[in-house]
Parts: sequence; C-alpha cells; structure tokens
Amino acid sequence: TSSGVFLLQMGWGDLGAFGEPSKETPNLDQMAAEGMLFLDFYTASPLCSPSRAALLTGRLPVRNGFYTTNGHARNAYTPQDIVGGIPDSELLLPELLKKAGYTNKIIGKWHLGHRPQFHPLRHGFDEWFGSPNCHFGPYDGSERPNIPVYRDWDMAGRYYEDFKIDLKTGEANLTQLYLQEALDFISKQQASQQPFFLYWAIDATHAPVYASKQFLGTSQRGLYGDAVREIDDSVGKILKHLQELGISENTFVFFTSDNGAALISAPKQGGSNGPFLCGKQTTFEGGMREPAIAWWPGHIPAGGVSHQLGSVMDLFSTSLSLAGLQPPSDRQIDGIDLLPVILQGKLIDRPIFYYRGNELMAVRAGLYKAHYWTWSNSWEEHSKGIDFCPGQSVDGVTTHTQEEHTYLPLLFHLGRDPGEKYPLSFASEEYQQAVEHISGLVQQHKATLVPGQPQLNMCDQAVMNWAPPGCEKLGKCLKAPESDPKKCSWPH
Amino acid sequence: TSSGVFLLQMGWGDLGAFGEPSKETPNLDQMAAEGMLFLDFYTASPLCSPSRAALLTGRLPVRNGFYTTNGHARNAYTPQDIVGGIPDSELLLPELLKKAGYTNKIIGKWHLGHRPQFHPLRHGFDEWFGSPNCHFGPYDGSERPNIPVYRDWDMAGRYYEDFKIDLKTGEANLTQLYLQEALDFISKQQASQQPFFLYWAIDATHAPVYASKQFLGTSQRGLYGDAVREIDDSVGKILKHLQELGISENTFVFFTSDNGAALISAPKQGGSNGPFLCGKQTTFEGGMREPAIAWWPGHIPAGGVSHQLGSVMDLFSTSLSLAGLQPPSDRQIDGIDLLPVILQGKLIDRPIFYYRGNELMAVRAGLYKAHYWTWSNSWEEHSKGIDFCPGQSVDGVTTHTQEEHTYLPLLFHLGRDPGEKYPLSFASEEYQQAVEHISGLVQQHKATLVPGQPQLNMCDQAVMNWAPPGCEKLGKCLKAPESDPKKCSWPH
Repeated sequence: TSSGVFLLQMGWGDLGAFGEPSKETPNLDQMAAEGMLFLDFYTASPLCSPSRAALLTGRLPVRNGFYTTNGHARNAYTPQDIVGGIPDSELLLPELLKKAGYTNKIIGKWHLGHRPQFHPLRHGFDEWFGSPNCHFGPYDGSERPNIPVYRDWDMAGRYYEDFKIDLKTGEANLTQLYLQEALDFISKQQASQQPFFLYWAIDATHAPVYASKQFLGTSQRGLYGDAVREIDDSVGKILKHLQELGISENTFVFFTSDNGAALISAPKQGGSNGPFLCGKQTTFEGGMREPAIAWWPGHIPAGGVSHQLGSVMDLFSTSLSLAGLQPPSDRQIDGIDLLPVILQGKLIDRPIFYYRGNELMAVRAGLYKAHYWTWSNSWEEHSKGIDFCPGQSVDGVTTHTQEEHTYLPLLFHLGRDPGEKYPLSFASEEYQQAVEHISGLVQQHKATLVPGQPQLNMCDQAVMNWAPPGCEKLGKCLKAPESDPKKCSWPH
Repeated sequence: TSSGVFLLQMGWGDLGAFGEPSKETPNLDQMAAEGMLFLDFYTASPLCSPSRAALLTGRLPVRNGFYTTNGHARNAYTPQDIVGGIPDSELLLPELLKKAGYTNKIIGKWHLGHRPQFHPLRHGFDEWFGSPNCHFGPYDGSERPNIPVYRDWDMAGRYYEDFKIDLKTGEANLTQLYLQEALDFISKQQASQQPFFLYWAIDATHAPVYASKQFLGTSQRGLYGDAVREIDDSVGKILKHLQELGISENTFVFFTSDNGAALISAPKQGGSNGPFLCGKQTTFEGGMREPAIAWWPGHIPAGGVSHQLGSVMDLFSTSLSLAGLQPPSDRQIDGIDLLPVILQGKLIDRPIFYYRGNELMAVRAGLYKAHYWTWSNSWEEHSKGIDFCPGQSVDGVTTHTQEEHTYLPLLFHLGRDPGEKYPLSFASEEYQQAVEHISGLVQQHKATLVPGQPQLNMCDQAVMNWAPPGCEKLGKCLKAPESDPKKCSWPH
C-alpha cells in the first residue's frame, strides 16, 4: 500500500468540514465525507520545521534535535542561516520505507536543513521538487540569497528569480507546478507498479501567501482563501488521479497541517483556528490542533469521525505499518499506528505533549489539558504589534511573561471549554483527579526522555544558500561571506 | 405543503456541520447533508422575544413593537412582569396560514406576552403545549410565581412544581414531552390529511439548561452538550416520523436559532458561536448569526450550501409562499421568500439590519458589515462579571460604553475577517465604496421606518402568572399584588 501525506499550513478552522463560514473547500470536504475526519489531531510543535522533523522521524522535536536551548521555551526553525539540520542518526520514514521497495518523493518545503548533509535525497527520498526553506524574499543576493528550488540533487533556480512570486498581486503558479509534479509521479509509479510514498508539503498558505492567476480573487476570504481554494482543487485532482489510475484502494492518503494558522498574518494572509485559542507559535489549541483527514477508499468507511488523540508523528508509524514494517526498536518512537483507529474504530489511550523549545508547556490526556507553562510572546514583541492571539485575551492564560504553573497546572476541560477560557478550580475534585493522572504521565515522560543534540542553536551567514549544488550550470552561484557563527535569536 | 420550524437557542458553532469540535449532532448534520445549509443566516435581534416576534410577523422588532425606549440601544424581552406583548394589529404567520386551511401548533416557549390578550390561541395558533416565558425558577409563589405550562387555553401546571427541573443535576424530561407532542400532532395531521404549521420552540439549551436522564452525562461538552444531543435526537425522530408517515416530501422543515449562544452561561451552560465575535445580547456576529438548515426531501437538492443573507423573518414569507399565500400588503414586511434561493440556487441582494432596542447598530450588505454603534455592555455590568465576550476583546469594537460611529462607521469584511477583528482603514477606497453603498441602504431604511408602539417598556408585579386560566381546576391560583406599573430596567 502506497502512502501520501498532504502537509499544509492551515488552521483547524480553515476547511468547510471544520466550520469555515465561507465553506470553500469542496474537495477536502468530499475527502472527509469519503474518509475519516480526525477532530483531535495535533502537530508536534507550533512551528513548521520541528513539526516536519517529527512527522518524518515519528519522534518529538526534543528527541530528534529540532529545538533550541538558546532561550527558555522558544520556538525555532530552519531559516537559511541555520547551521543545523536533521542528524544522520535519525531514521526517517522514507529511509525505512525503502526497505519495502518504496519510491519516495518530496514535493515542496523540506525544512530539515539546507546544507549538503541534510539534503532529503541523503535521508531516504528518491526525488525532490521544492525548496529547503520558506519562500521569503525577494532578496538581492548581497545580504542574503533567494531560496533555491531543487529538482532532486541540484537547484533548478531560485524563488522570485526563476520561480516568480508577485508580492503585490499575490500571483505565483507554484501550486500548479507542485500539483503537476504529484500527478506525474503518481502516474510513473502506477506504470511501474511500485509502491510509493509521496510527501506533498507545499506552502501556498504560508506568508507570503500566493495563488495562481485562475484562483486569484475567487474566494470570499481574500488572498489566503484563494490559496486555500487552489490547494483544495489540487487535492481533489490528486485524489481523482489515484481513482482514475485504479490505485486509490492501494493508496492511503492523509491530509493535515504543520501548525495552526498564523494569526499574525491575519486578516489578509492569516487563516482560521475555528473556536480555538491563539494560533501558530503558541501551545494553545489554536497553535497545535490541526485539521486532519484520512482517505483510503474501500478500507476506511465513508463519513467516519474519530476523537482519537492523534499526532503527525503517527503518520510515521502508520505508514510503516501499511508497508508491513516495524518502527525502529533502538529508540523512543512517539507516534502510534493509527490503523486500528481508522479501520476498526478503536480508541487508543495516549497523551499529547505540547512543547515549545525543550520545555514541556502542556499535556492533554482525554479531554483534559494541563498547562505547566504559559506564554504567547513577550511584552516587548507584543508592543511591536506581534500578536499571536489577536482579539483574544484570557487572564492568566495568554500571558506575555513566561508563567510557571508546575505545582498547580492550569487545567482545562476541552469538551466543555475548547477555547481554553475557563481554568478549572484548583480546589475541585475534578481538578485533583485529572492533574494527578496527568502528573503521572509527565513524570513517566520526563524520566525516560533523552533529548537530542539541539540543532537550532547556531546561525551563520556563511551557510546560506549562496551556492547550492547545480548553481554553476545555471550561473547562479553567489559568494558566501566569511563564516561567523552566532547563537540564533529566537524571540518567541 | 406543511411547514415546520425548529427554533432553538443555539450558537452558530454548536452543530457538527458548523464545526463544533465534539461533532455530537449526527441528526442535524444529516438534516444538512440531505438539505441545504445556510451559512449567512441571521436572527432579527440578539435576544429571544424580539426574534420570535420577528419570525412570526415577518417584521423587524422595531416595527412590531418588540423593543424598548427606556434606554438607548437596550435589549428587552418578556419576563413575567412585562405589561406588553404582541399587538392585535400584528398579523402572525399562523393567522394567515389559517386562510389556507392550516392547523397551527406551537410547542414550547411563546415569549410574545403572557397576559390573556397575548395568548397564542388568540393569534392564530390552534394548539399550544408549552410556556409563555422562560423556565427560570424555582420561585416560591410569594415574590413571583413559577412559570405555567399551558395545554391550549389553560395551564396544565407549573415548572418546578408539576413539570420538574432539577437544577442540581440538570435533569428534566421536558424535551421528551415536547418531542412526543410533536410526533402526536404530526400523526394527527397526517391522518386528517390537513396541512399544518408546527413551531417547535423548545428551550432545553436556554439557562437553566436541562436534559432527560438518558442524555445526562453523554456529551463531551457537559450539560449543555447533553441538552444539544437530546435536541438533535429529537429533531432526528421528528424528521424520521415525517418520512415514515410518507409526508416528508410535503413538509418543508427549517432549523434555526433565536439568538447566538449565551456566553455568559459558559462554560457549563453556554454554547459556541464558532469563529464569531461575542454572543447573545450583542450585535456582533456571535450574537445574531445563526445555524440554519432547510430540509424538504425531493425538492431541495441534498448537500446544498447557500450564502444567501437570510433572516428568521424570511420563514414568515417562505411559509406563506409554500401555502400559496401572499404576505400582507398593508404594511412593511422585512422577510423575503427564500424558495427561489432554496429551489433554484438564486442569490437575492438584501441587507441585514442589526438592532438593539430601537437603535440600528449595524448593517450587513454582501460581505461588508458597518457598525454605526458599538457596545457589549456597561463597565458597571461588566465589573459584576457579566461578560458577553469572554476571552475576546477587540480594541474600539467590543466597547463598554456606547460608541457612536455614525459618520465613520466601523467596517469589516466578513469574508476575510469573520471574527470582526480588523476594521478597514477609513482612507481606503474599499472602505469608501462599501460605506457609501451601505449608507444608501440605511437612509432608505430609516426614511420609511414606522416604529411600532414599544411593548417592552412597562413592568408590573401584578401582571405576573399568579392566576393563569385553568388555575382554579388545579388549585394553583395565587393572589396578585396590587398593580404598580414601573418602567422596566434593561441594563443591556
């Protein structure tokens, strides 16, 4: 059985099936109607790179190294001056799937490091079309180079230069390129009758948001909605392609997101986290609860709904299971195999850990969520207009200083209070029972935790994408400045 | 064609189909899947009585008299010391439907006045099982009597005394009684082959929230969710009953709500307004945008979705149209006939007016909403813990003083910003065009507005339900105090 993972940056509330009021995602809604909707599904970090590292390793960022120790409870990722990346010691899903004869392709943003040793084709992927970092820019090549777009080992050009993004109009045809890559790859695999793993990690809804001309202006929601519509349309075309090729019953497909909608980009480029608190960068539900849909015609009963606490890390274990493989036994794997949930409607008891950097901020068990630390961002950042919770403010919860609650965690019941507005009374029996249970889980978790070497501490202008492989052929090599490694600055 | 209207107090976000994360409304979701979902549907007031008066008259509360002039921009309703009620001069939907041979029944809360002249059987209904006011209590009969439950002309008992509501456990089997009434009425009408209008206006989700024993503790959402589940189950049973009797294709059914979820009752007894701002009592989207579903098998294409700006007042005109009747031509009717929308997918250009008392607070046209006045409630009330926007605070929008914006209305684009967080720049061309358009609509509206006599100004202890008709038979008559009419106090 082949696997496909659509990994986007969208909020829980961005899909019609999840209550977005414009209801402009007919293909994703149809995917849900034909498959299974996960309502309690989480990413492993409120930021992109660590989530992606977690998805591909089945392990929390604090284990696989995708975190920083430069400051307490800070999110970090892989900008183009990052020195670190995915360690060789980590076993990635595609590396393992190779043993079962899979061909693996990543389309879109890799985000696990852009230096040669971190290249996705050195970590199990057979093919790549996409970029190592976010499509920020344009840059003029003196202070920093534009982000390269790779085809397999070599760069095929750079964003803004060879792959246009018009920041004024929001026009870029990148999603169409990424769609075509996916369709072609699937056709090729079907022809060769080889199982495959396709990781479609495109970034149209990540600021700067873009859409192709045919989608611009088509959404009630503005440019962000245009991008969502194009992604929705693309997902529909990919699923239809699987059906037309007659391989949909042999292909497990999962749709989810790497973090909550970035409310700092609202209203023009931000999405929706539905009824949840705050967004990207935070460990409130809006930052880490994600839309999620499993689709596998002929196997998953249509119209299914699951309240299984799920995680992007489960896609690691589930994809291995589909390939008849076992997860590695020499290390802690945080993902679980969701097939019993998806195929037999089982519910597996497991907690969700919410990290920011290497600090365990919160834990969910059942419907209870305990916050051990709270903060959104600092007063200093907030005063500059950086607001992860615009229009929302819950006293003592959306704090602007790091507040420790280790001895009396803030406890929420996410069924009665999905918006994390009403902490339970410390004196209540309900509080005491739930916190006792969760504290036990925390103790167990911390006792066995072996943190990985933090990869996101050091930054250096010299390591940026000055001269990626293949730049000579394109005449696109730039001269790197002298190495000057510094601690990266992670304000959030 | 018969008509059924389910009128509840639920928030836009309380249904699975509208993105409630526990997704516990399978019957309402199924109703939507078989019918048409309205995503931009509004009530006529952020409070119960005026909304209900508007539904049954097809007219804004400011026209039909369901408002107060005791204070500026205040919500008023019909507590049991209210002197006023629905004027005889108003023509109610059931009165008109009688001309087409309909039998009309109201089950649940009437709320258009409880004094004899306001009795629903004097205003077109043939049958009634339910109460005139909210089920607040219990009262001891000295300061105020318990609310009566009527069967047709006479009271059948009182809440808490004869119709139990256990405030400690939340148990009451009232929804089951109301369900049985509906099933029996439908059976009777089917047997007699008479068209009917059933107005099922039950109140289990209105504080104090209750559910029957079999539903208590079944929801992830606590007591409120238990009540929602019971209502959902009841709606499913009523629709199934129509199908089993073979009359579903002759019965147009509509589900909606009289105001947004009451966030002051959260988290135990409050609902969800999804991604919208604030709730009941306010003219933000959370106060007046409602879940809405039309169902009419064989006529409405399954799975339809409409962005028509709709109103509870449209149920007046639509029900008349279904009966082959014209709305009265001697008065302004605010409702429109939705059949072209529902059956032919048309979109009718019309504004939505948001009133609080007799003040036009805001207007929506297309995706733009202009606020001419803002406030949630006073600082004084707010400091007592009465919060209509818990956890939400938008500078200059969720104000605690009445702020006038007549000359520079606050403008929101509800597509890009459904949460009303980002007012458009006054200087933008977009602002100027939209406000010019909306100002024209306001001018037109105000120029022709003939306000009704305000019914909700005077209160009097003497008019309470001391001795409703039928009390003698039950030995339940209480002695009224002397009349002492006073201006009612409407703090919000």
